[in-house]
Amino acid sequence: MADVVRFSISTDARLIDRFDALSAEKGYVNRSEAIRDLMRKALVEEQWASGTGEAVGTVTLVFDHHFSDLSDKLTEHQHSHHEAIVSTLHIHLDAHNCLEVVVLRGQIDEIKRLADGLIGTKGVKHGKFVATTTGDDLV
Amino acid sequence: MADVVRFSISTDARLIDRFDALSAEKGYVNRSEAIRDLMRKALVEEQWASGTGEAVGTVTLVFDHHFSDLSDKLTEHQHSHHEAIVSTLHIHLDAHNCLEVVVLRGQIDEIKRLADGLIGTKGVKHGKFVATTTGDDLV
Amino acid sequence: MADVVRFSISTDARLIDRFDALSAEKGYVNRSEAIRDLMRKALVEEQWASGTGEAVGTVTLVFDHHFSDLSDKLTEHQHSHHEAIVSTLHIHLDAHNCLEVVVLRGQIDEIKRLADGLIGTKGVKHGKFVATTTGDDLV
Amino acid sequence: MADVVRFSISTDARLIDRFDALSAEKGYVNRSEAIRDLMRKALVEEQWASGTGEAVGTVTLVFDHHFSDLSDKLTEHQHSHHEAIVSTLHIHLDAHNCLEVVVLRGQIDEIKRLADGLIGTKGVKHGKFVATTTGDDLV
Repeated sequence: MADVVRFSISTDARLIDRFDALSAEKGYVNRSEAIRDLMRKALVEEQWASGTGEAVGTVTLVFDHHFSDLSDKLTEHQHSHHEAIVSTLHIHLDAHNCLEVVVLRGQIDEIKRLADGLIGTKGVKHGKFVATTTGDDLV
Repeated sequence: MADVVRFSISTDARLIDRFDALSAEKGYVNRSEAIRDLMRKALVEEQWASGTGEAVGTVTLVFDHHFSDLSDKLTEHQHSHHEAIVSTLHIHLDAHNCLEVVVLRGQIDEIKRLADGLIGTKGVKHGKFVATTTGDDLV
Repeated sequence: MADVVRFSISTDARLIDRFDALSAEKGYVNRSEAIRDLMRKALVEEQWASGTGEAVGTVTLVFDHHFSDLSDKLTEHQHSHHEAIVSTLHIHLDAHNCLEVVVLRGQIDEIKRLADGLIGTKGVKHGKFVATTTGDDLV
Repeated sequence: MADVVRFSISTDARLIDRFDALSAEKGYVNRSEAIRDLMRKALVEEQWASGTGEAVGTVTLVFDHHFSDLSDKLTEHQHSHHEAIVSTLHIHLDAHNCLEVVVLRGQIDEIKRLADGLIGTKGVKHGKFVATTTGDDLV
C-alpha cells in the first residue's frame, strides 16, 4: 500500500483564496490535488533538465501527406528507431493534412535526438515535443 | 499548385555558419527547411496567443489506472465533449501506469478548457498540453 | 497584519521526499516556501494568460551599440512610451556589446506591444521578455 | 568589417505573406531582421540547452522589503557571489513591493545555481530567470 503522509503549510489567507479560485477554474476538485500536481510538474521538469534517466515523450506532428513521400519517410525514420518508439496515432485532419502523435520511450538524450529528427523532416509543418515520465517513480 | 516564391536575406557569414551547424545537428537536410520551420512555429504561437480561431491540440496524460476509477472518469470526461475530441491513444507503460494522448480540435478557448479539465483530474500524475494547428492555412 | 492560515495536504510519502530533495537543491530553506512559490507562479501565469489588468514586465536586450544609431533608437523608443517605462539598466558587456534591462509597468496588452517593439528593433541580437507582477495582490 | 553574405530561400507565397504580416505586427521594419532574430534565438536556446560556456542571464525578483530582512539577505547573497554578479537595478513598485533585476555573467551551470538561490529566497513573491548571451559570438 502507498504510504500516505499529511503535512501542513502556512500561507497568507489571500494567497490560498486566490489559489483555490484558480484551481476551481482549472477544474480541480480539491486544493491538495492542485498542489500535488505543481509538485509533480516540478519533479518532471527537473528530471528532463538533468538530462539523465529513462523517460517518456510524445511528438506531435502536422504535415501534408501529399508532400513528397513524407508519410513513408516518417514511417521509415520511426522503424529505424523502433526500440524507442512505442506507438503512433495518425489522424486525417482534412484531405491534405495529417496529425501524427508518436510516443517515445528511452534515455532522455536518445528521445530528444529522435524527436528533433522527426520535427526537422522536410514537409512537417509544425512539430512539438512533450517531455513526460514513465510514471513509475512518481506517485 | 502551390505558388512558390524565392526571396533572399543577408546575414553576417558567421551567423549563417552557426545556424547551418545547428540545423545539421537537429537533422535538417537543408537551411531553407530549418528557416521555414522557424517561421511556421512563430505563426502557430501567434495564433494561440491571439486566442481565436479553430485549432488542434494534444494532451499527454500519465496516470495509474488502479487509481480509483480514473480510466472511467477520463473516458466519461472525453465523451461529454466528444465533438471536440478526435481520437485517443492509450499505452500501457507498466503494470500500473498508462499514458494517454488525446487529440482535440475546436475553438482555442474550448480546447484550452477541456485540456485543463483532463490534466486536473485527480490521479493524473503528469499532464501536458501541446498547441498546434489544423494545418490548412499553413504551407 | 497579514492573516496567516494553516492547512494540511496529504501526499504519498515518496512524493514529498522527492520534492523536499528538489527544493533543497534549489536552495529553499523550507518546504512551505517552495510550495508557496509554485502557487504564486501559477497565479502570475494565469494573470498574464488572461491578458487583463496592470502588471510589470522586464525586457532583456543584447545589442552592439556600434550598430547604426541603435542606442539612440532604443532610447527614443523608450521615451515615446515613457509613461510605461519605469527604469533602464545598461551594462557594457565588452567593447561592442551592451545589455539593457528595461522595466515596464502598465496594462498587459500595452506592455506586450512595447516589449515586442524593443525586441524587434534592428540590431538587437537577442531579446527576452519576462512577465511578472506589481506584487500588490500577491502575498 | 563584418563579412555579409546573401542567400535565398524558397517558400510558398502564402507562408511568407503571413510571416510578413506577423513581423509587421511585432514592429519589425523588414523581413530579414525578423528571420535573423529567429535564427539567433535558436542559437541562444541551443547554447543554454548544451549547458556549457560563458553566458549572461538576468533574474527578475518581486518582493516585499518589509519582509524580515529580505533586502539584506538578497544583497548578502549577491555579494558572496560578486564575481558572477555584474549589476543590480532596484525599483520601488509601491510602499511595500520592490522589483530587483540582477545581471549575472559566468559559466552556465554557475549562473543557473545562483539564479535558483535568489528566486528561492524566502519572501520573494515571484522570480524569473532569462537566459541570454554575452553577444560576442552572435552577429
